[in-house]
Formats: sequence, C-alpha cells, structure tokens
Amino acid sequence: MTTETKIVRFDSLKLDCGVTLAPVDVAYESYGELNQDRSNAILIEHAFSGDAHAAGIGPDGKPGWWDNMIGPGKGFDTDKYFVICSNVLSGCRGTTGPSSINPATGCPYGSSFPAVTIGDMVRLQNKLINHLGIKRLLSVSGGSMGGMQALEWAVAYPDQVASAIPIASTARHSAMQIAFHEVGRQAIMADPDWNTGNYYGSRMPARGLSVARMVGHITYMSDDSMREKFGRRQREKNGGPGFDSVDFEVESYLRYRGSQFVDRFDANSYLYITKAMDYYDLSAGYPSLAASIERATCRFLVLSFTSDWLYPSYQSLEIVNALRGRNRDVAYCELTSNYGHDAFLVEVGEQAEMVGGFLARTLKEVARR
Amino acid sequence: MTTETKIVRFDSLKLDCGVTLAPVDVAYESYGELNQDRSNAILIEHAFSGDAHAAGIGPDGKPGWWDNMIGPGKGFDTDKYFVICSNVLSGCRGTTGPSSINPATGCPYGSSFPAVTIGDMVRLQNKLINHLGIKRLLSVSGGSMGGMQALEWAVAYPDQVASAIPIASTARHSAMQIAFHEVGRQAIMADPDWNTGNYYGSRMPARGLSVARMVGHITYMSDDSMREKFGRRQREKNGGPGFDSVDFEVESYLRYRGSQFVDRFDANSYLYITKAMDYYDLSAGYPSLAASIERATCRFLVLSFTSDWLYPSYQSLEIVNALRGRNRDVAYCELTSNYGHDAFLVEVGEQAEMVGGFLARTLKEVARR
Repeated sequence: MTTETKIVRFDSLKLDCGVTLAPVDVAYESYGELNQDRSNAILIEHAFSGDAHAAGIGPDGKPGWWDNMIGPGKGFDTDKYFVICSNVLSGCRGTTGPSSINPATGCPYGSSFPAVTIGDMVRLQNKLINHLGIKRLLSVSGGSMGGMQALEWAVAYPDQVASAIPIASTARHSAMQIAFHEVGRQAIMADPDWNTGNYYGSRMPARGLSVARMVGHITYMSDDSMREKFGRRQREKNGGPGFDSVDFEVESYLRYRGSQFVDRFDANSYLYITKAMDYYDLSAGYPSLAASIERATCRFLVLSFTSDWLYPSYQSLEIVNALRGRNRDVAYCELTSNYGHDAFLVEVGEQAEMVGGFLARTLKEVARR
Repeated sequence: MTTETKIVRFDSLKLDCGVTLAPVDVAYESYGELNQDRSNAILIEHAFSGDAHAAGIGPDGKPGWWDNMIGPGKGFDTDKYFVICSNVLSGCRGTTGPSSINPATGCPYGSSFPAVTIGDMVRLQNKLINHLGIKRLLSVSGGSMGGMQALEWAVAYPDQVASAIPIASTARHSAMQIAFHEVGRQAIMADPDWNTGNYYGSRMPARGLSVARMVGHITYMSDDSMREKFGRRQREKNGGPGFDSVDFEVESYLRYRGSQFVDRFDANSYLYITKAMDYYDLSAGYPSLAASIERATCRFLVLSFTSDWLYPSYQSLEIVNALRGRNRDVAYCELTSNYGHDAFLVEVGEQAEMVGGFLARTLKEVARR
C-alpha cells in the first residue's frame, strides 16, 4: 500500500488564544474507501512527534508510524473502514506551524506563532472532516497526545463521533509529565542556535533538540525494556576515557535517536506542541472531570499498558471512572506489556483485537440506529 | 553544632586508569569524638552532588545535607560515634577534581583530569581514614552513590569495616540509570560554553548544567510526591504565551533548582562523577555478584524505599540476595515513602531507627571480639 500526503488549505482558523490564523494548511493521508453512506470513517490522531503518514509505505519507502495497526485485516481494518490521519496544528510535517511562512511578513512565524491548544488541533481536524463530506466519524483514536485529541473530539463534537479510543493517554498531564516536557523545552531554549525561535534559514538548535529527544525516549521505554534491549552492554570505545566516546549501548542509541530526530522535527514545534499537551485539561472550566466528560455521548474503549510509567494506567482509569460515573458506555482494558509508553506503537496482538472488536460492534450499533 | 571543612593533602594517589594524581587534596568534616580505642568511627559517603558538609551548621549558616540523620541523639548519634564525611575524588567541594589546578601546567585540569572510579574514591578515603589513625571503621554508610562507595569499602577493605549500610543504592547501574545520566552529560556538552571542558576563567556552561540538574531532580522525586508538591498549580504568567514565561509551579521549581545548582557545582565534576557511577559494577571481574561480594566480611544493613523508581528496591534485593547466598550477616528493609529517591535524604523516622539500632548492635559485636 503506497500512500501520499495531501494538503488542504482552509481560509482561516480561530484559535483559543483569540488569534485567527489565515490561511491554515492541513496535511493528511487516508487509507481504505469511504462507503456510500459515509459511515465508516475513522480519524487517527498522532502522538507528539508523529505525522499524517500513519500507514502504508510513503514515497520515501518508509512505513507509517502505526502501520502495524492500520491496513487490510489489521486492527483498523482498511478493508472495512476509511481511515484518515492528519498532521496536528503547530506541527512541522505539512500542517501549519511555527516553521510555516507568515503571509503577513513573508518569513517563518518562529516564536510569533500563536499559542495552540489541543482544542485548536481538533477544531482544525473538524474542518478537514467536514471538507471530506463526513458527517459523523465511526471512531476517533490515538495514543498519548492522540488520546487527548480523541477525548477532545468526543466532548467538543459529540454529534460527530460514534466512538472514541484513547490509548495510553490522560485527561490532563501530571506534574511529572509537565516536568519532563519542561526539561526538553529548556534544553532547546538553552541552545544558542535557538535564537528565541528565529533560526530558520540559519542553524537549527540541533544540540538542544537532540537532548530533548533523548529525555523523551527514556520516558517512552520502561526500566525492563531498557534492560532487555541494552543492559550494561558496552560498545568498543572509539577513543580514550573521554566523555564524548560512546561507551554503553544505551548511550549510543539515545544519541542516534536524538540526532535522527533533528532531521525530521522542528524545535519550535517541539515547544508549541508540548505546551499544548501540558495545558490540556479536560476538566478545565467544569466542577469535575465527570461533569466535563458528560458532554461526550459516544461509546468508549480506553486502553493502557502495565509498564507505561509516563502515562500510567491510573490516568486511564480516571477517564473510565468519570465516564462510568455519568453512565457512559465505556470498556477499559489494561494490556500487559514490557514496552512502557512505546507499547501502543509496538504491541499489536491484543491491542489490534480489542480495537477490531470494538469497531465492529460500533459499526453494528451505528447501522441499527 | 557549628562545623568546618578541613583539607588534608596527600602526596599522590594511583588511579585505576593507571594515572597517578599528585598531589591530592581531600576535604572532610567530622562530628562527635573519637573514643580512646578508636572503635567508634563511622564514615559517611555522600551522593552524586553532595559534599563533606554532612551535618551541623556550616560557616555559611547552612545545615549539612544529612543533618537530620547525623547529630546528638540522631540516627548516626554523635554522642556515641565519631562521624566523618569527605568530598569525593573528582568533586568540586575541596577534594581534588577537574576544577583543581594541575601542578604540571599551573592551570585547572579540565578535561585532562584522569577518569576516576568509585574504587579510586574509596582508595582516597582509605588514605584519609589511615591518616586519622583509624584502623577499623565501625560503619560506612551512604545513600545512592554513597551506597556504592559503602559496598566498595566492604569488599576492598574487609578488615577495616565492621559494618556497611548502603541505602537506596545498587551494585551496578541499569540501562535506565545510565540513560538519565547520559542525558545530563549531553546537555552539558551541548552547551558551547562547555568548550570541551576548558571553561575555567571564562563562562561556565551554566545552561547545560542547569538542564542536566533538572533531569536529575525529576528522577529523584516520585510521580506521587510531585503531584502532592506541585500538581497542576500555575503561577501567574509574567508575560504572554511565550515559552520562557513560567507557568506551572513544577517548571518554576525545576528552573530554580537548576540555576541554584550552577552556583555550587562544577560541570566537569558532573561528567566525571556520573561516569564513575555508570561504570561501577561490583560484579566486574567475578563470575557473579555473589562471588564478588563474598570478599566482604562485615555486617550489612541494606535499605530501600518503596517509591524510589530510580534505585528501585529490586537493586537492593540483588545485593541482599548475593550476601545471603554467601551466608553473610545482612538485614534488609524496604521503607515506605512517597518521596522517591530523595527519601533517603528526607525520611528520618524509620530510617534513623533502623540505622541507630543496627549501629548499637554492631558496636556491641565489635566490643565482644
């Protein structure tokens, strides 16, 4: 399955901060076929560093970030469903973000890009869905930040979603989650090449962004999975006892992943998107999470993973309990995995079965109405 | 109790890497009185960023880093014991390290400082103990890296220690522990002011060191303790939606601790000491940890804390099991605490009782022989 990222341009988007962005581009991909009554569309939401290329093989020969879950006969079965994935607002993979050209100045926005929320991201996706002529999504799903967007869809557009599948996610970040993000942001901003966000056409803050990504990668794994993958294995030293000679395999891996990230991600997008995640609080403006989540009327499948210490199961349970407290239709499963937060990207078996079964039941439910 | 850091100079110290450092200074403090038969001396080992000022009030009016555990009537009761604490080799608080003057050049060592091991640190402490006329320590104790040194003392100088109390520690770092250290090192080395370690007399790599410390602080706390201490509380914004305006309290706290650290710690010491910790492996050169730890003949009290995810209890249990496998005298207790790795610095009650009781029994044991 070869795929291609398309771009749609909208005239404008009003943001939560009051600013109106104009124009706004959205990069998206789609897989499978939209059925005649347009009832089989599923919106996939990517996590922090993802993009629209969720499945299939892109023009560069690389599989999508959730290719093991999306495709013919897979969890999100493209023989049955029309699956859409778009790059988030303030991203750097086709959708408008800080690295986009500000038409008012002819230069990249940089730090003048307005603050963006998870709500804004979802509002833009809603424009895309309407543009595609889809009145109601069969489901909206994603892991991590993707789960936050799925939750936001469910409460912001209750009439337009039949189900939501937030995975390894949360209704709001904990202090620890904010703290790890803040370290990444500080690493970027400590890099003189960041230059208060105006580095386009000049040197990228590559060192800072790389350090930020290294922190991220540790939090995405688990103590166990790191022990299995690296242990204390050492690589041959390529020098003396200097501190820049790679020694432990885990060091080499993290440096590699850090430097690799710099080639595909924009440092300012890192800052904007992590802030959007940290500020997200589904309960904000409501007396309780339950009072807020009550706006959602769709069916829910909530998944978490045993070894995920970054988005621990208690955060998923908080969502589940709030839904149950308001008599919403919710299924919850904590899946066993050693992979930490990365589990939602790599654990296919049970996750795919849970998702596949839930979608089939949702489709039946929708057809009955 | 007012205390003062003293400095002893030794002619030289042969290091594991083959280099001989000459001369070598050791900064130390002591509390209480050495008894007539010199049998009541306890060596306290500091953790990564600690120093010789373990107890009492220093000339700057600040209490020692373990003042709640060391003093009259406390866990390490200075009415009964003579307590010593010295700054580690490659540190920056009086003991020779990368910021010390290399007599061969008249300039600070910087990156030309030789690689240092936990074994080297302990060998230097052994010189200090001999210098003080102490033939045998009643106990050697410390948390985190302090515990590694306590273990190393027990196996390297079995005739000179009657007991060891490693707390919240490990016989060797896991991949995750190495990984977090590597992030800190990369943050420092990514700072152009680091200048491959030769920044003395110029600008310190303050931004990199601050980021490194922020990472450290997160790992020293627990998800729970961070929720209790900060939650999602926000501070009044001192600007627009910019990314350098402090927002969440946890962000402000981390930045403050980061910038504070820069005033008292040397970036090169950060690199050298974390490398010494990462390389430390008590089982190295032996077929098993048990075969290595068998060299120790002293009594052990091993302590860990329930919420410490950086040095989890399973690492302490690995030590305990190795000792038990060789029929060594070892008591183990996992203490309940919410404070994560910081627990050994803040949890006084049970920890002090365990330590106090263990020391009293050790003293009796020593007297009986």
